[in-house]
Amino acid sequence: MSSTKRVWLFQEGDAKMKDLLGGKGANLAEMTNLGLPVPPGFTITTAVCNEYYANDKKLPQGLMDDIKKALKHVEENMGKKLGDPNNPLLVSVRSGAKFSMPGMMDTILNLGLNEKSVQGLIKQTGNERFAYDANRRFIMMFANIVMEVERRKFEAIFDEYKAKLGVKQDTEVDANTLKSVCTEFLALYLKETGSGFPSDPMVQLQMAIEAVFRSWMNDRAIVYRNREKIAHDLGTAVNVQSMVFGNMGDDSGTGVAFTRDMATGENVMYGEYLMNAQGEDVVAGIRTPMPISSLKEQNPAIYKQFDEIAKKLEQHYTDAMDLEFTIEKNRLFILQCRVGKRTAGAAVKIAVDMANEGLISKDEAIHRVKPSDLDQLLHPHIDPKANLDVLTKGLPASPGAAFGMIVFESTDAAIKGLTNPVVLVRPETNPDDIRGMVASKGVLTARGGMTSHAAVVARGFGLPCVAGCESLVIDESAKTMTVGDVVLTEGDYISIDGSTGRVILGKAPLIDAEITAEFKTLLEWADSVRKLGVRANADNPKDAKNAFEFGAEGIGLCRTEHMFFEKDRLPIVQDMILGETEADRRVALNKLLPVQQGDFEGIFEAMQGKPVTIRLIDPPLHEFLPKYEDVLARIVDLKARGVAPGCPAYELLEKQETLLEAIESMREQNPMLGLRGCRLSIIFPEIVEMQVRAIFQAAVKVSKSGMEVHPEIMIPLVSHVNELKFLRDKLEGVAKQVLAEQGVTMDYKFGTMIEIPRAALTSDEIAEYAEFFSFGTNDLTQTTFGFSRDDAEGKFLQKYISMKLLSVNPFESLDEKGVGKLMKIAVSQAKEVRPEIKLGICGEHGGDPASITLCHKIGLNYVSCSPFRVPIARLAAAQASIESVGEKDK
Amino acid sequence: MSSTKRVWLFQEGDAKMKDLLGGKGANLAEMTNLGLPVPPGFTITTAVCNEYYANDKKLPQGLMDDIKKALKHVEENMGKKLGDPNNPLLVSVRSGAKFSMPGMMDTILNLGLNEKSVQGLIKQTGNERFAYDANRRFIMMFANIVMEVERRKFEAIFDEYKAKLGVKQDTEVDANTLKSVCTEFLALYLKETGSGFPSDPMVQLQMAIEAVFRSWMNDRAIVYRNREKIAHDLGTAVNVQSMVFGNMGDDSGTGVAFTRDMATGENVMYGEYLMNAQGEDVVAGIRTPMPISSLKEQNPAIYKQFDEIAKKLEQHYTDAMDLEFTIEKNRLFILQCRVGKRTAGAAVKIAVDMANEGLISKDEAIHRVKPSDLDQLLHPHIDPKANLDVLTKGLPASPGAAFGMIVFESTDAAIKGLTNPVVLVRPETNPDDIRGMVASKGVLTARGGMTSHAAVVARGFGLPCVAGCESLVIDESAKTMTVGDVVLTEGDYISIDGSTGRVILGKAPLIDAEITAEFKTLLEWADSVRKLGVRANADNPKDAKNAFEFGAEGIGLCRTEHMFFEKDRLPIVQDMILGETEADRRVALNKLLPVQQGDFEGIFEAMQGKPVTIRLIDPPLHEFLPKYEDVLARIVDLKARGVAPGCPAYELLEKQETLLEAIESMREQNPMLGLRGCRLSIIFPEIVEMQVRAIFQAAVKVSKSGMEVHPEIMIPLVSHVNELKFLRDKLEGVAKQVLAEQGVTMDYKFGTMIEIPRAALTSDEIAEYAEFFSFGTNDLTQTTFGFSRDDAEGKFLQKYISMKLLSVNPFESLDEKGVGKLMKIAVSQAKEVRPEIKLGICGEHGGDPASITLCHKIGLNYVSCSPFRVPIARLAAAQASIESVGEKDK
Repeated sequence: MSSTKRVWLFQEGDAKMKDLLGGKGANLAEMTNLGLPVPPGFTITTAVCNEYYANDKKLPQGLMDDIKKALKHVEENMGKKLGDPNNPLLVSVRSGAKFSMPGMMDTILNLGLNEKSVQGLIKQTGNERFAYDANRRFIMMFANIVMEVERRKFEAIFDEYKAKLGVKQDTEVDANTLKSVCTEFLALYLKETGSGFPSDPMVQLQMAIEAVFRSWMNDRAIVYRNREKIAHDLGTAVNVQSMVFGNMGDDSGTGVAFTRDMATGENVMYGEYLMNAQGEDVVAGIRTPMPISSLKEQNPAIYKQFDEIAKKLEQHYTDAMDLEFTIEKNRLFILQCRVGKRTAGAAVKIAVDMANEGLISKDEAIHRVKPSDLDQLLHPHIDPKANLDVLTKGLPASPGAAFGMIVFESTDAAIKGLTNPVVLVRPETNPDDIRGMVASKGVLTARGGMTSHAAVVARGFGLPCVAGCESLVIDESAKTMTVGDVVLTEGDYISIDGSTGRVILGKAPLIDAEITAEFKTLLEWADSVRKLGVRANADNPKDAKNAFEFGAEGIGLCRTEHMFFEKDRLPIVQDMILGETEADRRVALNKLLPVQQGDFEGIFEAMQGKPVTIRLIDPPLHEFLPKYEDVLARIVDLKARGVAPGCPAYELLEKQETLLEAIESMREQNPMLGLRGCRLSIIFPEIVEMQVRAIFQAAVKVSKSGMEVHPEIMIPLVSHVNELKFLRDKLEGVAKQVLAEQGVTMDYKFGTMIEIPRAALTSDEIAEYAEFFSFGTNDLTQTTFGFSRDDAEGKFLQKYISMKLLSVNPFESLDEKGVGKLMKIAVSQAKEVRPEIKLGICGEHGGDPASITLCHKIGLNYVSCSPFRVPIARLAAAQASIESVGEKDK
Repeated sequence: MSSTKRVWLFQEGDAKMKDLLGGKGANLAEMTNLGLPVPPGFTITTAVCNEYYANDKKLPQGLMDDIKKALKHVEENMGKKLGDPNNPLLVSVRSGAKFSMPGMMDTILNLGLNEKSVQGLIKQTGNERFAYDANRRFIMMFANIVMEVERRKFEAIFDEYKAKLGVKQDTEVDANTLKSVCTEFLALYLKETGSGFPSDPMVQLQMAIEAVFRSWMNDRAIVYRNREKIAHDLGTAVNVQSMVFGNMGDDSGTGVAFTRDMATGENVMYGEYLMNAQGEDVVAGIRTPMPISSLKEQNPAIYKQFDEIAKKLEQHYTDAMDLEFTIEKNRLFILQCRVGKRTAGAAVKIAVDMANEGLISKDEAIHRVKPSDLDQLLHPHIDPKANLDVLTKGLPASPGAAFGMIVFESTDAAIKGLTNPVVLVRPETNPDDIRGMVASKGVLTARGGMTSHAAVVARGFGLPCVAGCESLVIDESAKTMTVGDVVLTEGDYISIDGSTGRVILGKAPLIDAEITAEFKTLLEWADSVRKLGVRANADNPKDAKNAFEFGAEGIGLCRTEHMFFEKDRLPIVQDMILGETEADRRVALNKLLPVQQGDFEGIFEAMQGKPVTIRLIDPPLHEFLPKYEDVLARIVDLKARGVAPGCPAYELLEKQETLLEAIESMREQNPMLGLRGCRLSIIFPEIVEMQVRAIFQAAVKVSKSGMEVHPEIMIPLVSHVNELKFLRDKLEGVAKQVLAEQGVTMDYKFGTMIEIPRAALTSDEIAEYAEFFSFGTNDLTQTTFGFSRDDAEGKFLQKYISMKLLSVNPFESLDEKGVGKLMKIAVSQAKEVRPEIKLGICGEHGGDPASITLCHKIGLNYVSCSPFRVPIARLAAAQASIESVGEKDK
């Protein structure tokens, strides 16, 4: 019954009916029933919107009868009648979807005016100018929104009149002129639409309602919903509400207020208002609004009433609210209320304060803050109030914001970065750029995606990065970067926002990262609730220290090969790779051993006794060598230049040819599926033997200094239990040997990544030889989808998302149906064999709130993410825990 | 109790006890109990062998006592005693594992001889020469096998004596000389081993038994077991049996016979024998043995007895048997019987004959033939009796054998192949070589694996191919191929055996493929039993015709892009790919449309109304373009040569640069996981729209000629249901449009490959939009294991298999635990949504018997394999069906 009711008086609904009445309608109903001064009206449901579309854009039969009935109630309540030549009712017709879509859909005000009722309005108000001004606004709005006549055509007429009068402000135009303007507007309407302006208010109303429904599917609404992931089949409701006027004199006014400061979260009412004005005027920005605090002096009674209403609403909704109000001739009306949008910092403070005030529970406080918003608080960010000169956009590759002088070379960055903030701008980065990146405040690249070298390294360093900014043309020799016709040279200032991908001219005003007391409190509350542990991915002592400070309970992924890329080590690594015999390789490995050991010592020390999961070498060896094409090109070039035996360059040519042969022999069709991970270690066990020796020598040294050490050795890319068994046997032998040599015992674990479907499918076999699993969901997503991330993101993944073939990027948020299913299979099978097995995730998903929820559901023990995402993961894990308790209660 | 019994008299065992007594021992026991004339003896169990190894290579305590007891029985039975100076018992000590390992382990004959018992033997036989000859043989054998003294040292002594006597044959040496030889042999033994020859027969026996156990782990036995996939922990039994002698005069003899002809299968006894000879003499080949049929005339009574025994054994074992016999002084002894090894052709004939004779059931006949052996019968093969001059070995890339004149260029092959058989020898092949391959009898390549272009194309054509023959050095300009120091030039004859990988000098004698009446009968029986359908993979009308003739019930995989590679089409395809706009591409596609349509017409006609599953374009587009490196090298070369604007070659340079840019933009890190399959079709739908139009236009045309057509459109590489939904909607639209244009209705299906783990995991969603699934187990194996086949096979897969990390190559035989599990999940989920869904497999596994068994178990409807494997699949499917019924009965 109730679902077929199409038109609801405000007093018939409530705040829970957002699906049917939209957010605005539901809150108007709620406030009406709370006894607040809401101008009466009614709501046409979202279901009618869907009927309208299902019915070839026609209103359902009988709707207008329902509306007439509802209107009658409103007319009786107000003691006015729509179109009445003596005492006319005017109404607003507004959209209102379930989720707020500010400014995306259409609104019509002052509906009900025609030649006769305008006279009634004059009688009602005794204000001719006001009445014709209202009529002028109505005609223009109606023509523009309902009939799509361009607004500027009306404005041109009005501007002409103002010019004739020699005035600038609309308020300076007199009643007679306004009357003439209305006449000309009606003529323009006829000319543009081919039909006369509808004088019947019911016709006006019907046309306005249809226009609002149509606006649900306008381009900007569709784009907005796509971006905000709002379903297109929700539909919008339409609210028809009696007009009240803030522009009826100095005893009238209109304003917007928040029950708390939405920028800082402080518990003070915050907002602004204008006397003798309509909402439009506030928006137009011609007059400067007053802070809400002034109302206290200007009109203490109204202020008091408003303050009480605000408090009541906050209590009632248990949240900080955003209110719109109008004062008509000293009478206060509330036109809208909704939960107020706030900055991340304010969200944290309001949630913690409200919990401390007893308004909400601690769980609710945890629930109120969107984990991903914390990112803002953990990195410097651009002042949201600043006016920015945005030059272009790239991919938001590493969060945070920075400004600095442009440098195009890493060596320049290293030098200039000592005295000035610099932003390193490169076509793309490679391991040689690490030193330059470290010296910079931020990194901007023209090529490469979210997994490019620049992006991965920057995220690890907590450095803002905008990557793959394709509109950027870099001329390295001229030291310029060009976007369209803007040319910047070295030393010019730019700012980058790695959270949004924006590239901004000049120095954008930054707000520093700050961990407030409330933030700390919230995270403590989160820690007390969450079931999931939170670890960090860190490859070096600096990152480990960071992770520890952000509250990481261990290292979930320490990639040992990242250490190989550093400048002093790469030549040794290359010697090792190019060694022809095992003996050659061992010579190079012996040089690497103390270096790796040193790294591990630093990491163990930084983690102060917490467990450290170390992944043995994973990438294919050719990643450490120069690119095939580069060497090939050099050889072809030398040959074409006639280099032959006897030439001074001949030795170089020979060397390059040997190198090319080596690279050629290591080239792979699909390196992601080739000789890497445990496969590499099975074929060349001496590398991992060195690594395990380095780990345990470091562990022994640190533990002898009196600190606990818990190394966890992780073998990557296992697809068959025998791979793990073989390596574990071999490597545990090395571990035991080191411990025996040193006469030390130690708690250690051996485990594996689950990042290949077959490993997940045969987890029961694998669990026999693994004390822990860590889901490597980057690779697992690649293999489960058959997507190479590097190729997919550039070539088809974005298109898939825009075509809605995929709702989200599965590399950002775990794919529950596919990858998640494999994880569930893996967990349940493994627990049967080894109930105490430790289960974690160390893919990038470990820092994604939605994925964290899934990990909680699947029953993992911990997530591991980049150090800067640790607080986010702590909060998300707590939310997952609270939600799952909630679900069990159901 | 019985499991701890270590020593079994022959009369205590039976043929079922192969695990414990080994094959030889179990059959000796069975024959003994059948009342056949078997020299008495006993068997020491395989369990003792394992005890021996577990016990640090020491015989278990008490074993020698058990042996003494058993020996006593034998002595009583024979009325002789081991070592008796008057009437000595001599015994043989032979290995005998569960599975026959011919010649791999050791045997000692005439054990029990010493200075005293040799005199007893003289008394017993009245033949001094015989006794010393036996002693000579025993000493040498014992020294060689038990003490590892080189045989040639003994032979040198004997040869010296023969030289002194001026004789050539051993039989010409007199008793006295033999006695001296024995004395020198004993001295040599002492010198070589440092200890005297053991004269105690019990010591001899113990040492001989230990030597046989040791031989279980000799190198050649290990290699043999690895090759034949026999477990190393089975152990060998030891058979100790009374000696009988075929060399005691013209009334004695020895021979080997098969109850049927093991080369042809004909039902005639087949074999050969030598009178007055021991087994050794037959093997030595000094005297030419007589055919068994001669025995009928030479000794009708013995022949009759032997023939009766042979028939009895065949009836008893219900199989064709391999027998060893000895005649000692006109008395027949059977020394061994086992199921006889036979050629594939004989296996088929024997199985069908025996079923027709009522000896075995039809199901048993089906069960008796190993499906993979049929391969031999379907291709010409090398006469197994031929002496071959094997030059080298490569990978057995496509079965069958051929000989021909060497040609090094495809164009030469096309010309010379018209008048002479030619074998195309290439470093590797590419699409340009197809014409040359077609003109050749076989293909030999130096590089590339089982999935190289040469291998894949040759298998498709049914052409023998040996690939990746790495010892081959080809000099294309000199037109020579070299292996070691053998240099062959164009025009020289070679033979290749694509079933074994052998490369043979000259013309090897070939036996033509022949489908005999029995073969047809067997396949008919198989068809009546099997539940699985059998289809073929065929990409062109010729293959389709082949497939139909081999009994394919449809095409399970028609790859549409193979048609693109042909010489006249590739330029159009490249134009299409390099087209900058959709319009450019459509121009090229319009040229391809009639060509593709023609192919499909031919295929539909060849299949005469059977269903044809057509897979839409699958590979990444860059596969159709030249290699990046080649174009890059050309550009660098042109530039280094100073080509600049104005030069005649400048236009070429520019063109190459444009081409390089296009290739560059399409390059992928991991093309296997990149823009291909349905992803490509989603981004560039015009290609598949053309293909579907071509298919349906062809189908309409053929159906109008009166032939039924059942096209099944297969969309590859789906990982998410939305990909399938999107393409199916679009392409079914094209299909309907063509049918509407032509005013025809037709039965067609749309379906998808399941070749990505996510597709298998979400098969319920996918089944909503697919009328059939075909498991693409090549890609599914790649993604499930995370192995790129191209990379893995060369870099680590073979090593994994040799290290026993994997027991079989998962690309050859389906991995049941991983890939098979995904298939099971996919099938059960899909059937819940669409119970009538048609399920098949079209990976190469579709022709592998073990995989076919798994497909049967999983509940697929059909397998699809290359045309030449269709008979194999029919037989394997029947076996799977029989086995599963058997299992249900249990």
